[in-house]
Amino acid sequence: MSTHEARLAALREQLKRQDLSGFVVPICDEHMSEYIGSYAQRLEWLTGFGGSAGTAVVLSDKAAIFVDGRYTIQVRDQVDGRLFEYVGTASQSVADWLGKNATEGNRIGFDAWLHTRDWVKAATRAIAKAGAELVAVEASPLDAVWLDQPERPAALMVPHPLEYAGRESAVKRADIATWLQDEGLDAAVITALDSVAWLFNVRGGDIEHTPVALAYSVVHKDGTADLYVASDKVNDDLRAHLGNQVALHDYAAFADGLDALAGKAVAVDPERAVAAIFARLEAAGANISARRDPGVLPRATKNPTEIAGHRAAQARDGAALSNFLHWLSVAAPQGGETELSAAAKLLAFRQASGKLIDTSFDTISGASSNGAICHYRVNEETNLPIVMDSLYLVDSGGQYLDGTTDVTRTIAIGTPTDEMKRRFTQVLKGHIALATIRFPKGTTGGQLDALARQFLWADGVDYAHGTGHGVGSFLAVHEGPQRIAAFGGHGEPLRPGMICSNEPGYYKAGEYGIRIENLVLVETLDLPGAEHEVLGFETLTSAPIDRNCIDPALLSAAELAWLNVYHAKVLEIVAPQLEGDARAWLDTACAPIA
Amino acid sequence: MSTHEARLAALREQLKRQDLSGFVVPICDEHMSEYIGSYAQRLEWLTGFGGSAGTAVVLSDKAAIFVDGRYTIQVRDQVDGRLFEYVGTASQSVADWLGKNATEGNRIGFDAWLHTRDWVKAATRAIAKAGAELVAVEASPLDAVWLDQPERPAALMVPHPLEYAGRESAVKRADIATWLQDEGLDAAVITALDSVAWLFNVRGGDIEHTPVALAYSVVHKDGTADLYVASDKVNDDLRAHLGNQVALHDYAAFADGLDALAGKAVAVDPERAVAAIFARLEAAGANISARRDPGVLPRATKNPTEIAGHRAAQARDGAALSNFLHWLSVAAPQGGETELSAAAKLLAFRQASGKLIDTSFDTISGASSNGAICHYRVNEETNLPIVMDSLYLVDSGGQYLDGTTDVTRTIAIGTPTDEMKRRFTQVLKGHIALATIRFPKGTTGGQLDALARQFLWADGVDYAHGTGHGVGSFLAVHEGPQRIAAFGGHGEPLRPGMICSNEPGYYKAGEYGIRIENLVLVETLDLPGAEHEVLGFETLTSAPIDRNCIDPALLSAAELAWLNVYHAKVLEIVAPQLEGDARAWLDTACAPIA
Repeated sequence: MSTHEARLAALREQLKRQDLSGFVVPICDEHMSEYIGSYAQRLEWLTGFGGSAGTAVVLSDKAAIFVDGRYTIQVRDQVDGRLFEYVGTASQSVADWLGKNATEGNRIGFDAWLHTRDWVKAATRAIAKAGAELVAVEASPLDAVWLDQPERPAALMVPHPLEYAGRESAVKRADIATWLQDEGLDAAVITALDSVAWLFNVRGGDIEHTPVALAYSVVHKDGTADLYVASDKVNDDLRAHLGNQVALHDYAAFADGLDALAGKAVAVDPERAVAAIFARLEAAGANISARRDPGVLPRATKNPTEIAGHRAAQARDGAALSNFLHWLSVAAPQGGETELSAAAKLLAFRQASGKLIDTSFDTISGASSNGAICHYRVNEETNLPIVMDSLYLVDSGGQYLDGTTDVTRTIAIGTPTDEMKRRFTQVLKGHIALATIRFPKGTTGGQLDALARQFLWADGVDYAHGTGHGVGSFLAVHEGPQRIAAFGGHGEPLRPGMICSNEPGYYKAGEYGIRIENLVLVETLDLPGAEHEVLGFETLTSAPIDRNCIDPALLSAAELAWLNVYHAKVLEIVAPQLEGDARAWLDTACAPIA
Repeated sequence: MSTHEARLAALREQLKRQDLSGFVVPICDEHMSEYIGSYAQRLEWLTGFGGSAGTAVVLSDKAAIFVDGRYTIQVRDQVDGRLFEYVGTASQSVADWLGKNATEGNRIGFDAWLHTRDWVKAATRAIAKAGAELVAVEASPLDAVWLDQPERPAALMVPHPLEYAGRESAVKRADIATWLQDEGLDAAVITALDSVAWLFNVRGGDIEHTPVALAYSVVHKDGTADLYVASDKVNDDLRAHLGNQVALHDYAAFADGLDALAGKAVAVDPERAVAAIFARLEAAGANISARRDPGVLPRATKNPTEIAGHRAAQARDGAALSNFLHWLSVAAPQGGETELSAAAKLLAFRQASGKLIDTSFDTISGASSNGAICHYRVNEETNLPIVMDSLYLVDSGGQYLDGTTDVTRTIAIGTPTDEMKRRFTQVLKGHIALATIRFPKGTTGGQLDALARQFLWADGVDYAHGTGHGVGSFLAVHEGPQRIAAFGGHGEPLRPGMICSNEPGYYKAGEYGIRIENLVLVETLDLPGAEHEVLGFETLTSAPIDRNCIDPALLSAAELAWLNVYHAKVLEIVAPQLEGDARAWLDTACAPIA
């Protein structure tokens, strides 16, 4: 019996013991985090699936795994099709599948700490059609049989100094308290890990690539707060930092703590708080008001200190990337380099700054055809050599105390084909169209998305991802609420102080991938004669864009001017940080194109 | 006592007799029409307000009128502020106002045939907060005191020949029947007047500018239908056209007719069917399924016959407009022409085709500062002379049996200022950007809207309306579901066969207005090497764009080429229809710009 066959069998035995006919296993934690700790990798333990999004459903006689279009190939590689039927979420949702496959009287278990309230509502309705029932379990049957389940991480929660945060936690809490009072509410339950970190000016090391600590919080209308965090993460430094307006409780005391909100008007974010929190508050007799986490917008609109920090982090990161690009220009043509060796080299250059805390996500180091896989993660099996006359795509970022970076460059190794140059130049034109757009206050990222695609669309090609996402300040590299994408982003207007990525691309499956990504800052422009408040983008990322991939004949005079001005600025910011050959190389890489 | 003071007093007396504390008076008919008959102009009768959107609420001791931003000036001109408080809908909704102004125990009446179900839900909730109740009236207290309320119009319902409709009504009904069967539904209630007209291939004369007849319908899953229409609108021709699969009933029998759907699964469109229909079906015990009117999408995606008809109508209409523009080029510099005289002349040129059934909306004939009023409707009081060195904007359209037109041209009378030329050219660049965009299947109009604004945005200016709306085939000039606008349009993808307007503009309050509007057809493009289905627009409207307003230095080579190709096509289509001086003028107006 294979490992996963045994695990599935053990889970089914446990389901019987808990009087359940089935169980739903998502990739999620109690904070709806995008990235989750190893203790919460239940789907991977059960099925072997290593992707970042997916769900399994186990019934007594069948089981299925649900993944989106990104993972249709990977799931077949990693998950045994004899144990789990493969289902594409585009064709059938978990709820629909359960509606069809559950039978009369079935009790389908789920862990209410790992699902949204909306999911529970939809699944309950779908399952009811089959005459079956969705049951919130008291104790997870999977955790019961996962004997070597990792402990929750024990990294310290540490203060994030005001010189980086820019605004006192007490001031942030006072703003939320004012909002609560204005809305006639008593308290807000805040459980997203980056929201908690932002609100209390704390950071942690519990989640890879995102410097947050596992914690829950409740903010009251008088500006005081409760913070629920494992006691072994707390030391005197932290206590002193939090002050006497923040009551510390153990992480495990959170659910009981919700009972104290009985009779209170409580704001809870249905997209960020799990169903169990709603259920517990309802049971306690709280008056729940579904509201967006009040920290989301102030966190997304960076304050002057955070903006200054981003500039410093970007300059430092741009130097590391430029050193890497110089190294690549010398090493790659000699042969012998691979996706893994290049990623290691890039990490070393970032570490050499002495200020890198972590990468901000797993580096996407994609040579040749691997560059066409948008969410590629290199490993020993997939590792391709970097060869002549190919494109190499590297998407990476760093976590620094003063800011989070995210940058993609695509490099021609040897000579690119005419098609590669045409596509690269079209992607660049889209990047420039977005970088230079001016727009009225109130405009959403969704309204701007097509500007970055229009030149590819003219050839009947496109890219299957959004053009931009928000970025945190020494926090999550993917941060809401704004997006630059046709869908999602909640119709959220772009506001001064928001930081977004600008990352159009083009991917030719089996051949090559192209992406040009800089981070941009939304800022107010002083435009004489303007009849409304005018916003625009300032590009924050400084690293050369590979001129060998550009066909200047496809650029307008204005686009060429943008490129030359951009490279002049890269030179100004990065050159003083480079030495010797790298500096000479940067001069050439940033020289104006006539 | 003024007329409106007396009417308000009479209504209040009637409210007492009906045991009501208040009443809500919208601008609406029983079919949620955009334009309504004079019998339904209740708000105008009560308050004097002549705009196209607004609501009044009358309580025993106060009353208010609610209008949107377009009408803040007009409402003050037309409505006595001592009788009705002015409320901007942006600052307070009717429901919110009632929540604040109704008092405990109040019974606020409304006519459930004039509101959506969603409005009723929201208002009920808001009013309940005040301890008051929203009450659907059996008989309208307003109609009871409106002694000279016009009768419902008695125009005949007439067959719309297959040579224009392109698809038999029986085939359309069969498609809806198939959809009903697929969805497990028994019937669809279809009450939007243009949906009814499209579905049965009939037209009417009950609504100004929109050739529809007042009627309700129910389509059954076997393809048969009930059609409710006043018996004096029906003759033998119509009976023969409808055939024996359509049961005719009197218009007044509709509500009772709904009772026959007891126990049936019935599709009703919550955006197009009024609250009374939902209430009646619920009371009858029907199983209501809220679905979009199944005729909306097939109506919006024109069939080949309708497309051919549009081309013919546009060519004819373009000739009329070109004759008008020639006349204007001669008459305007001589002085003495006005907005009214010009509109009359344009109408005469359209009528000269012998095929004009009606204009498709009230012509917007705006000279100088009146051109800056987007929804301007000229009358004797506002009528401005057309003077030298000014801009004149004319937005107009015709209803022809083979198609509906809608076109705007802005003309320099004398010499435009540099600013006028700059703005006109920016509007033109936006128009061209939209006209030439290629995009993947699945793209919505909302994704494309910014393409038309980007050049104005660069100067910090914009226009406060959408860029495009759908257009019917000898039906409503504003037709859903698609739009080219940041908001609205329901995320509806643009599909081959849809017709939209392309109408960016610029309005300088108190000075001048600019709009360039053509209709465009969504079509599939055969693009070698394309990796997805590529769609684009074919411009249908043929009339010269005033070269005197263009600054060619602001146009790219590609934009200039588009303009020259467009004018060559106008010449090809329109010139054969013109004579003498007009034809010579067109040669000059369409000559290429170097």
